Amino acid sequence: MKRPLEGIKILDLGHVLAAPYCTMVLADLGAEVIKIERSGVGDDTRRFSPYINGESAYFNSINRDKESMTLDLKNPKGKELFLELVKKGDVVTENYRPDTMDKLGLGYEELKKINPKIIYACITGFGHNTVYPGRPGYDIIAQAAGGLMSITGYPDKPPTRVGSSIGDIISGLFTVIGILSALRARETTGKGQKVDIAMTDCVMAVLENAFARYTATGEVPERIGSRHPSLAPFDVFKTKDGWMVIGVGNDSLWAKFCKGLNIEEYITDPKYATNEARSDHSDELKTYIEKWTSARTTDKAVEEISSFGVPCGPVNTVDKVMEDANTKLRNMIVDLPHPKVGKMTFVNNPIKLSETPCDIFKVAPGLGEDTDKVLKRVLGYSEEQIEALRKEGII
Amino acid sequence: MKRPLEGIKILDLGHVLAAPYCTMVLADLGAEVIKIERSGVGDDTRRFSPYINGESAYFNSINRDKESMTLDLKNPKGKELFLELVKKGDVVTENYRPDTMDKLGLGYEELKKINPKIIYACITGFGHNTVYPGRPGYDIIAQAAGGLMSITGYPDKPPTRVGSSIGDIISGLFTVIGILSALRARETTGKGQKVDIAMTDCVMAVLENAFARYTATGEVPERIGSRHPSLAPFDVFKTKDGWMVIGVGNDSLWAKFCKGLNIEEYITDPKYATNEARSDHSDELKTYIEKWTSARTTDKAVEEISSFGVPCGPVNTVDKVMEDANTKLRNMIVDLPHPKVGKMTFVNNPIKLSETPCDIFKVAPGLGEDTDKVLKRVLGYSEEQIEALRKEGII
Repeated sequence: MKRPLEGIKILDLGHVLAAPYCTMVLADLGAEVIKIERSGVGDDTRRFSPYINGESAYFNSINRDKESMTLDLKNPKGKELFLELVKKGDVVTENYRPDTMDKLGLGYEELKKINPKIIYACITGFGHNTVYPGRPGYDIIAQAAGGLMSITGYPDKPPTRVGSSIGDIISGLFTVIGILSALRARETTGKGQKVDIAMTDCVMAVLENAFARYTATGEVPERIGSRHPSLAPFDVFKTKDGWMVIGVGNDSLWAKFCKGLNIEEYITDPKYATNEARSDHSDELKTYIEKWTSARTTDKAVEEISSFGVPCGPVNTVDKVMEDANTKLRNMIVDLPHPKVGKMTFVNNPIKLSETPCDIFKVAPGLGEDTDKVLKRVLGYSEEQIEALRKEGII
Repeated sequence: MKRPLEGIKILDLGHVLAAPYCTMVLADLGAEVIKIERSGVGDDTRRFSPYINGESAYFNSINRDKESMTLDLKNPKGKELFLELVKKGDVVTENYRPDTMDKLGLGYEELKKINPKIIYACITGFGHNTVYPGRPGYDIIAQAAGGLMSITGYPDKPPTRVGSSIGDIISGLFTVIGILSALRARETTGKGQKVDIAMTDCVMAVLENAFARYTATGEVPERIGSRHPSLAPFDVFKTKDGWMVIGVGNDSLWAKFCKGLNIEEYITDPKYATNEARSDHSDELKTYIEKWTSARTTDKAVEEISSFGVPCGPVNTVDKVMEDANTKLRNMIVDLPHPKVGKMTFVNNPIKLSETPCDIFKVAPGLGEDTDKVLKRVLGYSEEQIEALRKEGII
């Protein structure tokens, strides 16, 4: 066994981000992911800029390690073919609007008649079981509705969307966990089940602490910038060439910090001696510390403050993250040969397993490039049968 | 079978957030999670404010559904007892600094000698295999080092930490996936393995699109507030009583939006007719739209714009999320009886399974409240043996 999820066959009707991210993680781990796309069109993200030699960087980044086949699900014969695949499959994934699959006659209730062992995983903005069946599930809508935007950003600025589509991505991750759990249950029960993931639920689940604080105190959590809600100085600070973070989590770290900065008188100064006092004077403190950090480059300031024994680190821009020595050591950036582009660069999967490692092994497929291969391998179709399907416009 | 992960025994040495979040998800799904804590002290988060009747809301929120036993791992007999548990366990989880377990003589290499089937999952800031073994793994340091802060926030404000500890939490989620994958691999190989998760790797993995854009264009992604990088108007807007998001993703939605607002002349106005033109004039557009939204409450504006057929939604604060009708329908807020507090309120697990559902079933344990139960159940110890261990201060 080379990869841990070998032998799991996934029929992926996902598009754009949430479901494709889910099946990307599964594919990296060795699951056989067959991405089913509309002939001639394919996943919308194939047309998301920027491009490298006509290939969407975005599409490639989340569809590596998968196969692509085309199939017209609106054609009755295409539908039949899909059901043949469902008989052989373990998992179906999709992130259409809640009623789309039912309208196609391909909802979970239909699929489980064909294959009671199938696991059906869907990701939508508000769930299949929802009071908002018509609301679209854009990432920004989930980040906003689930409460994350209301606690991200600075108080004198609007609520802030996280800079990556975290609403889609965490939903993809929870769906992976749901699928792997359902596969495990199936070993005992012999039956599949439906995994119904709502992006807003997932956003709520990663806000945990905010809800805990609210239910304990009745105070609605607000935006507080980058600082820690109860520790100081614990924030982001300007440097000569960028930004850094410093986390003085207790009084003994404060003493180390003051010694390092040659301001030992502040250790016992009643304005700063305790965390509570420091929190009350955090603005002054920030101004003072930024005077020191601004006189140094990020690298230099991080090196010095680390040497005092105080937790800190650089705010890396994307280029810096890629160059980082640890990124290299952990093989987090991978180049793979690409037939059209020469080579393509990927962020690797962060799950580092010692015995059955998951490494990216192949770039994203061209539209329908594996159609014939899949029909032969999974359904045992002949060249002639495949040719006939192609002539009818079904694949 | 009631829950999908029944029968998996996890020895959890996790503390604070990343590892406890991981085992919380596993416990919700039915895994048997034995939280092993230091006698008399326990997990630091037991002392994180705010409290309800002396119980930390924070600790409870991420340690529900687990058992707690106390054990002194520095005592040779305590170590022996831990190794007895490892013989019976499936998974060990921890998020100490990289060398802590090795120094205790309880690193993976030792544990696998005792039980080759054990799965050992560790979460650290930069990995066990790292060039930064000494760097602390605070959430803010991972969000900063992994690049997420550099692309979150407004350009005229500092890089912004996501308002929840997303660096810890996504690391917990990737660890769950790693553990479930390793369990699956074990069914074939008969062997356990090590799952080495670095928070910075996980942050990189959820930035995906930013790396894809950078590798395609060479342009370093920057902070752009809440707006969409290439669509307009697609942003957050002020209302009379709060904020809302609106996503005009294409020209046909723009036409619907203009008709609804009675500004049909803008549909063909060259300043706004195409997405590119709208992006070039997004500031004017934002001012104009905010005049309209500011005259309405969030609820009213969302209702009206939805009725035009344009994607939009409220920016909910935490109290609003809790009251939302969909939150209730999906059972995302759960009250459970608590022996000290009366009742305690939890955010439910977002993984909604149709056949083996995962619901929260029990509040967080008091420190060591299950020690005797675990020693009897797992190791078959007698009352007398347990009493002797207690007298020696080992449990």
